[in-house]
Amino acid sequence: MKTLDVDLDDRSYPIFIGAGILERAELIRPFLGGRQVMVVSNETVAPLYLDRVASSFSDLELQNVILPDGEVYKTLETLNVIFDALLQNRFNRSCTLVALGGGVVGDIAGFAAATYQRGVDLIQVPTTLLAQVDSSVGGKTGVNHPLGKNMIGAFHQPRCVVADTATLDTLDNRQLVAGVAEVIKYGLIRDAGFFFWLEENVEALLARDSDVLSYAIEQSCHNKAEVVAADERESGQRALLNLGHTFGHAIETGTGYGGWLHGEAVAVGMLLAARVSAGHGWLSDNDVQRIEALLVRVGLPTKPPQGMGATQFLELMAVDKKAADSGLRLVLQKGIGHAEVTGDFDAEVLRRTLELATCRA
Amino acid sequence: MKTLDVDLDDRSYPIFIGAGILERAELIRPFLGGRQVMVVSNETVAPLYLDRVASSFSDLELQNVILPDGEVYKTLETLNVIFDALLQNRFNRSCTLVALGGGVVGDIAGFAAATYQRGVDLIQVPTTLLAQVDSSVGGKTGVNHPLGKNMIGAFHQPRCVVADTATLDTLDNRQLVAGVAEVIKYGLIRDAGFFFWLEENVEALLARDSDVLSYAIEQSCHNKAEVVAADERESGQRALLNLGHTFGHAIETGTGYGGWLHGEAVAVGMLLAARVSAGHGWLSDNDVQRIEALLVRVGLPTKPPQGMGATQFLELMAVDKKAADSGLRLVLQKGIGHAEVTGDFDAEVLRRTLELATCRA
Repeated sequence: MKTLDVDLDDRSYPIFIGAGILERAELIRPFLGGRQVMVVSNETVAPLYLDRVASSFSDLELQNVILPDGEVYKTLETLNVIFDALLQNRFNRSCTLVALGGGVVGDIAGFAAATYQRGVDLIQVPTTLLAQVDSSVGGKTGVNHPLGKNMIGAFHQPRCVVADTATLDTLDNRQLVAGVAEVIKYGLIRDAGFFFWLEENVEALLARDSDVLSYAIEQSCHNKAEVVAADERESGQRALLNLGHTFGHAIETGTGYGGWLHGEAVAVGMLLAARVSAGHGWLSDNDVQRIEALLVRVGLPTKPPQGMGATQFLELMAVDKKAADSGLRLVLQKGIGHAEVTGDFDAEVLRRTLELATCRA
Repeated sequence: MKTLDVDLDDRSYPIFIGAGILERAELIRPFLGGRQVMVVSNETVAPLYLDRVASSFSDLELQNVILPDGEVYKTLETLNVIFDALLQNRFNRSCTLVALGGGVVGDIAGFAAATYQRGVDLIQVPTTLLAQVDSSVGGKTGVNHPLGKNMIGAFHQPRCVVADTATLDTLDNRQLVAGVAEVIKYGLIRDAGFFFWLEENVEALLARDSDVLSYAIEQSCHNKAEVVAADERESGQRALLNLGHTFGHAIETGTGYGGWLHGEAVAVGMLLAARVSAGHGWLSDNDVQRIEALLVRVGLPTKPPQGMGATQFLELMAVDKKAADSGLRLVLQKGIGHAEVTGDFDAEVLRRTLELATCRA
């Protein structure tokens, strides 16, 4: 097992990464503030792992709430299901919520923990690659609104993160592939060596070679922890983690949080961002091709959804959280391993890139 | 005009108190982070004051959302009305929400500001006595759940508070009376001199004598600011501000957030707390009578609602935010001007006090 630390003064916490650590009570127990534990999971993950996680809390007042599976349920209505369960069981302010599942479960359970009685303890137990390398770390929580992804939420750091790499054995291949998009992201924004390593090892990663998977998760969490420690509330460099996300959120919102997984939308977004960067001369055409080639090898999509045009993209992107009074801001590449948040790009290059990408001639 | 400061490091802010300051743009403008302003008000207050507040923002991108009036609307559903308005108008992360109204508007607009895009700026413009002396200061925001008052929320400090005492001229007398309950509270928990002053001046206060009203508001805000500065997140002495509130929340929840105003419920709660305190010998019978006499002179209720019995009280109190694993905790008096949060009380004294108070023989 490997332990990484997210260094945030009195809100610092460890990320435990290892195979079969899900039921190691001694990892989790020190982080409980009281005797009431609510495990929040979904109908896919709960049958596989709920009992094993629950075994750590069998002598406590333990409850669980099982949500339907999917981004389409990341809503205020589903959030209220968690509040109902907490109140019906008279959970008090010293209770702990345990998020057992992927990014949706982590985001929504995290937001419930951020707002139940104005804030209770949270433990993240991510069971998808995407959640282990990204969403369970850093304290972003929230739900979607029909008009925009993650528009309602809070910063609420967990007390600890338990990433059991063995849970990826049961992960659907499409979910695994989607998670790789966020892994590649770290390489693109700040870790060129990691990108090159991925070019060498991506087939082994997809074959779930346990050493390769573990290294990819550790390196991703290491990058994320450094960024979050430097800029918890995204007033600066943390925004780099949103590479591809402004485009990706437009895809997710535009498709009604239906058919596309978050990582799939981000993959297309990263390629669009690379092309816009190249359109300004900030990234070579060769690097764009390397990025696209890696996404293709992983099996990630590289084209926007059928039916979405440039105008719809631009409208949906205008409401993104990175938009400011001064207009839209994008994360763009300056070579592989370097990215910048900037509003200083040519809107025509952006529009032309979107028109080309959405053209189905 | 008087300015008080809430001292919270980088989240410090001023409370401006004075007559006719609502439209003084130079007070509010320095606290805007961007060019988008959403005024949240209700159908009672908006016709009276919205135009005057809006005049400060006429050169900006100004929108408003008018909520129905009443505690019964302090829900997740109403919160979503604010999110809809923000997103339909493409408000970005540097927007400001202005809460113009009483405690309900302040709590719900504050929670919207706490959670829209994970937190945007908030300015409180309280127009009821209760909001001016209590709820607009200190950063508690939230909504109710059918099973418990204020159970969903966040701490989110405003950038400034503008308490225009002239807005109380149009305040319904029942609302004014309800606000006096929270004023009396400060005397009871930490300011005996203020309690004695209220005994001398309560008729002038109710007659809306402007000097007396101003002094009562300033002294209340001064007390609240000191407590909040010492304990922002209610890990200690801030809980004293909840004197009467555990009983009061039970009344509000038990009556479905219908007929009772918050201050009315708190008044009954403070008297019940005084009686429980006296039952332990911590408060003299004479002091209980002084408290009851003052509440009666103000015109506040002193008996729980018809139909609520001791058992229902105890059930509803069990879910209160001050409940802990170790059981219910109450704010109890140790003389006038002193209070303590304690779980160390005789449950039989509590039950007997509730039985006596709810007995309608």
